[in-house]
Amino acid sequence: MNIAVYPGSFDPVTYGHLDIIERGAKIFDKVVVAILENPNKNPLFSIDQRKQLLISATSNLSNVEIDSFHGLLADYMLHINARAIIKGLRAVSDFEYELQMASINKKLAPEVETFFMMTNNNYSFLSSSVVKEVAKYGGDISDLVPENVLEAFKKIYD
Amino acid sequence: MNIAVYPGSFDPVTYGHLDIIERGAKIFDKVVVAILENPNKNPLFSIDQRKQLLISATSNLSNVEIDSFHGLLADYMLHINARAIIKGLRAVSDFEYELQMASINKKLAPEVETFFMMTNNNYSFLSSSVVKEVAKYGGDISDLVPENVLEAFKKIYD
Amino acid sequence: MNIAVYPGSFDPVTYGHLDIIERGAKIFDKVVVAILENPNKNPLFSIDQRKQLLISATSNLSNVEIDSFHGLLADYMLHINARAIIKGLRAVSDFEYELQMASINKKLAPEVETFFMMTNNNYSFLSSSVVKEVAKYGGDISDLVPENVLEAFKKIYD
Amino acid sequence: MNIAVYPGSFDPVTYGHLDIIERGAKIFDKVVVAILENPNKNPLFSIDQRKQLLISATSNLSNVEIDSFHGLLADYMLHINARAIIKGLRAVSDFEYELQMASINKKLAPEVETFFMMTNNNYSFLSSSVVKEVAKYGGDISDLVPENVLEAFKKIYD
Amino acid sequence: MNIAVYPGSFDPVTYGHLDIIERGAKIFDKVVVAILENPNKNPLFSIDQRKQLLISATSNLSNVEIDSFHGLLADYMLHINARAIIKGLRAVSDFEYELQMASINKKLAPEVETFFMMTNNNYSFLSSSVVKEVAKYGGDISDLVPENVLEAFKKIYD
Amino acid sequence: MNIAVYPGSFDPVTYGHLDIIERGAKIFDKVVVAILENPNKNPLFSIDQRKQLLISATSNLSNVEIDSFHGLLADYMLHINARAIIKGLRAVSDFEYELQMASINKKLAPEVETFFMMTNNNYSFLSSSVVKEVAKYGGDISDLVPENVLEAFKKIYD
Repeated sequence: MNIAVYPGSFDPVTYGHLDIIERGAKIFDKVVVAILENPNKNPLFSIDQRKQLLISATSNLSNVEIDSFHGLLADYMLHINARAIIKGLRAVSDFEYELQMASINKKLAPEVETFFMMTNNNYSFLSSSVVKEVAKYGGDISDLVPENVLEAFKKIYD
Repeated sequence: MNIAVYPGSFDPVTYGHLDIIERGAKIFDKVVVAILENPNKNPLFSIDQRKQLLISATSNLSNVEIDSFHGLLADYMLHINARAIIKGLRAVSDFEYELQMASINKKLAPEVETFFMMTNNNYSFLSSSVVKEVAKYGGDISDLVPENVLEAFKKIYD
Repeated sequence: MNIAVYPGSFDPVTYGHLDIIERGAKIFDKVVVAILENPNKNPLFSIDQRKQLLISATSNLSNVEIDSFHGLLADYMLHINARAIIKGLRAVSDFEYELQMASINKKLAPEVETFFMMTNNNYSFLSSSVVKEVAKYGGDISDLVPENVLEAFKKIYD
Repeated sequence: MNIAVYPGSFDPVTYGHLDIIERGAKIFDKVVVAILENPNKNPLFSIDQRKQLLISATSNLSNVEIDSFHGLLADYMLHINARAIIKGLRAVSDFEYELQMASINKKLAPEVETFFMMTNNNYSFLSSSVVKEVAKYGGDISDLVPENVLEAFKKIYD
Repeated sequence: MNIAVYPGSFDPVTYGHLDIIERGAKIFDKVVVAILENPNKNPLFSIDQRKQLLISATSNLSNVEIDSFHGLLADYMLHINARAIIKGLRAVSDFEYELQMASINKKLAPEVETFFMMTNNNYSFLSSSVVKEVAKYGGDISDLVPENVLEAFKKIYD
Repeated sequence: MNIAVYPGSFDPVTYGHLDIIERGAKIFDKVVVAILENPNKNPLFSIDQRKQLLISATSNLSNVEIDSFHGLLADYMLHINARAIIKGLRAVSDFEYELQMASINKKLAPEVETFFMMTNNNYSFLSSSVVKEVAKYGGDISDLVPENVLEAFKKIYD
């Protein structure tokens, strides 16, 4: 079976992420969305909240699973026996950082391949950070995140 | 079946192309290398020669096929009923051009996805044009192209 | 009066160009679309055809004029007594070329300023060349160019 | 009236900023320099100091006003009824960040346009951070900032 | 005598750094590796440790010296009477940052030149940060750093 | 002796080229300006004219020599027994192309190093093509090229 892993922070999941997940799920047999537990970062949503938001937002996609991991992505890939990583590319700065990451992962786990997917043009400016910044000042984010994430923000800022 | 199409000019195939083909063939069920017949370009090798060089250079890979096409890649994808395009990315300039191409193909055939693979660091400088330029002036290209392409150049420049 | 000049080849005008023209026309008192007559290029549409297509496509915008020029843009700006150039930016490669052009124009006509506008995300992949390539092979361009340009292509390829 | 807003941190204003302000003030009827009050950043100069330094440095420009704001730029634009944002572009990294910002502002306030101006080549390396770093170690910044900012640094480091 | 200074944090030295040092030492009469003492950063290895690791890793190169400095690089260059800075370039993001630094140094010390060297393709993804991240989670770094740095990491994480 | 080779088309030499030559000549014992004889290009000035313009424009620099070559730069470097190439970098697009060239030269002649120098900010937009375009339409190029090149253009366009 062809398993693709889509790693990230997803703090929180946006329509940009969902677009990649849906498109990946049409090509690969299974897509595992893998939330990185990064102790150095100070997230807005906990790992559990992010997992619940992702599960609910992808409930219509039968071949998508949500998981989390800590440590090196290369180790996680070998652990779940997956060989393909998928990542969305928005801009040149993304591109260089992601190429560096892909090189390291190739070094640590030569049998793992990274596949970059073009971000949908409608979401090329979109990131979790942008959503959090706009939400914090009461801007409208209803075009940027799914309904359940919108609700989660309302609980924080209302 | 998961078919990936790897389109290009392949005038001629290099070790950089072969690296992408081999790595793609490990993830996808079948990789179709599709040579674009571009009437505007003045190639060094004919479509038939390029096809023969690719067939011979990939003879060890049982799930790789060589084909050629003219016109729009999106049409070719629909014609052979394939949904994944793979492309190698070397540099930022590649990245922007390929993103433009991927956007157009997405517009023309929404069910087709383009997956970008990182070029092996050893071949990040390598292109068919570079090989032709070096070969023309008698430089050593034995680390850049497979044996049969080396022979093909010898027939031209000896 | 605040006049902005929008220079280009417009061979032919696309929805990407029209988006810049419309947005520019909301900020500046007048927008002059200036078609560059470039003897080195081999255009698909003549200067007159391109002018007619632009006039018709912008007929709903009362403060837009269509003109053409040859030679240096800096000279044309001084000739029509305009001080602002507007240009659309899609990608990094655009950005560097346009910055070089803006530097030269600044050198040749220090009182002229170039203002770069972000291309609408929906048209970030769009260029006249892409439209011509797709049209040539019978692909659907109805989302890429206005109705009258669509008709002009039909006359060529039908 | 054609009002352009030039937003930023201006901690402190440099000759690079002043160059954009002067050139913008020649094209637009009024330029409002809008200092962003960012609670997350730890500035060297207070909002009031930055405002005074800007007022004094632009005293020769009759159509320039200095203001400050917090929250979303899109809200501020609507609040003061302005439709044009101007930003200086130095490098590709600027370009991508600024395009992202312009996309969000377009989403939040569709009638607002962002216009990018090319930074004067003499100041392409210049930023407030660079000035602060050089001043901290006693380097000569007299070519980088106006007289009054030079005085303000002397009060800190002498 | 032609002295080149190679400045950096070297926290710790990697095979990427050593490649630049070796290649620089073949062209210049002397290469001084200059460790920047940056009070704002929180390094893993102390200045003394970094110095010892560099001395040991370059012991086979007779025209390489290890030093450290704080403050402005331009001042250090004048202090040791050196006129050439060498820097490795990996990616576009490096390139823009380094060009900005080179511009400032040129401004502060006009007689000093910065020479950029292409990073070896094998190390294009490599940085001290990457090494520290991989080492922290027990990944194999034996291809990324020299033997003595490997030992230094073992003392920390074993 | 430390010889640096500065290769290029120099059709014709500009103040941007002269800036690199002068700065290189202060660091290296000798700088050889090497004009590439490219049969595929259609130059404005002949090799001999370009050589004469360079000789005259660098007559004040005692350690600069003018030469020409055809074929591969790596072969030329070995032929004249030089180990350092110097190149000016203006923009990201330059950077990627030059990195590719440096990689190939490294492959063909491993003992040869390429050193990139930052273009003077005043000339960051300047290229021989730009000068030819401006001169063709009668624009003022007296700030862009030395006196003797100005005269050479006058003979063509007067």
